[in-house]
Amino acid sequence: MAELVITSPSNPRLKALVALRRRRTREQEGLTLLEGYDELALALDAGVVPRTLFSCPELMLDPGLQDDVVRRVAALGAETVRLSRAAFEKVAYREGPDGFLAVVPSIDRTPRELDLPAEPLLLVAEGVEKPGNLGAMLRTADAAGADAVIAADPVTDWGNPNVVRGSKGTVFSMPVASAPTADTLTWLAERGVPLLAATPDTETLHTDVDLTGPVAIAVGTEKYGLTDAVLDAATHRVRIPMAGLVNSLNVATSAAILLYEAVRQRAIR
Amino acid sequence: MAELVITSPSNPRLKALVALRRRRTREQEGLTLLEGYDELALALDAGVVPRTLFSCPELMLDPGLQDDVVRRVAALGAETVRLSRAAFEKVAYREGPDGFLAVVPSIDRTPRELDLPAEPLLLVAEGVEKPGNLGAMLRTADAAGADAVIAADPVTDWGNPNVVRGSKGTVFSMPVASAPTADTLTWLAERGVPLLAATPDTETLHTDVDLTGPVAIAVGTEKYGLTDAVLDAATHRVRIPMAGLVNSLNVATSAAILLYEAVRQRAIR
Repeated sequence: MAELVITSPSNPRLKALVALRRRRTREQEGLTLLEGYDELALALDAGVVPRTLFSCPELMLDPGLQDDVVRRVAALGAETVRLSRAAFEKVAYREGPDGFLAVVPSIDRTPRELDLPAEPLLLVAEGVEKPGNLGAMLRTADAAGADAVIAADPVTDWGNPNVVRGSKGTVFSMPVASAPTADTLTWLAERGVPLLAATPDTETLHTDVDLTGPVAIAVGTEKYGLTDAVLDAATHRVRIPMAGLVNSLNVATSAAILLYEAVRQRAIR
Repeated sequence: MAELVITSPSNPRLKALVALRRRRTREQEGLTLLEGYDELALALDAGVVPRTLFSCPELMLDPGLQDDVVRRVAALGAETVRLSRAAFEKVAYREGPDGFLAVVPSIDRTPRELDLPAEPLLLVAEGVEKPGNLGAMLRTADAAGADAVIAADPVTDWGNPNVVRGSKGTVFSMPVASAPTADTLTWLAERGVPLLAATPDTETLHTDVDLTGPVAIAVGTEKYGLTDAVLDAATHRVRIPMAGLVNSLNVATSAAILLYEAVRQRAIR
């Protein structure tokens, strides 16, 4: 492998890489960033083909791993570039970088493009602002065996580096989609998927409802919750019991409690 | 109210405030920092008496609120200090400060000092490193109506500003304690509280176990899980089902799923 090596932090290739932290650049290029060995390995297992892999052996915990992954990525036809420590630290976006940063195709699609089973378990996140929360929801949806996560009226894009990081790479293995809320609701209705809306303003608990069939679990923003459009379209409105002083749960925590109630009812082991 | 006003960011009072970001200073002084209007209001409701309240009306969303809180804090006998914007921004530790920062007594105690009901629901977090996770667990424990949260072999202290922030102030309303793991296990055994240990290495699901009586739910670090000491002492070892590629949940998410299974079984509404 005659790998390209970049040692200067002012190399223009690196500037182009940093530019992908901006949503507009990601959307124009149809590309996004994936940092970290574990996340990259998971994306490769899920069939992602990187455009380019930037690596820095000096930063790796186990440089032996490096050759394996570089070889695996090169075998997929991707370009591989080796960076000096100074160059890598310029492009890394997380603290304590581990020497792996890949440019990969964006993973966004519309709900209609999702390939779903007859009785899907879906998570709909409406208007969620913090990329970390969206990433955390993906990680939990992956663990819960959900069939897809849909961002309705999204504020952030799936390619946001903090979504990728928070998701531990599952954004590349979990089917994800985004659409305006109205389109999402139409699509769910057409498919006949019941909609479960989480809201504090109801007496029905999330554990009172049958979640064994097809179901889309919807959570809204931390500040304002779900919009009236979703609440009005909901088959069931449910609340999570709250006994304490704060009276609100983190949105990703709410999603986890709801998804795992579905896991319990579906007897997923 | 003849309030003290500080306009210079180099005032020594402010340095002393910034010093409280260090654990050693917090432990020496028995004090910690509480930032944010919502968090302060919750702590006041929970009976916390601040030592000093630093405020900056310029940064407040609703300066009308300011006088109310300053008056309420002053009525408790606490000192109140008004800061210029430049001075406040020097001492604020969160992004987008809202003009409230209080110095309050530390809230740490040992498990033996906890005042508990006959059949308590407890959360034991062993060795958890990230203050944000510890704070998130407190917020969820508050919502779930848990009776106390115990940090076993803690890596961080309850007064860590990021614990306070992540907890949304519930660190001042939720009974919290910390102790070495060995002492925590002895204390639980003496009180006859069954111990539920979360681990991937078992076939028993968390939903297979009776959580209606007294129970301490134990979660470990994200990397290594619970220590053998806790696993060996456990009444039940349980796992949360995981269907996905990542095969690990965030520790605060795991705690939420376990606590809310207890909420479901206890029929807490």
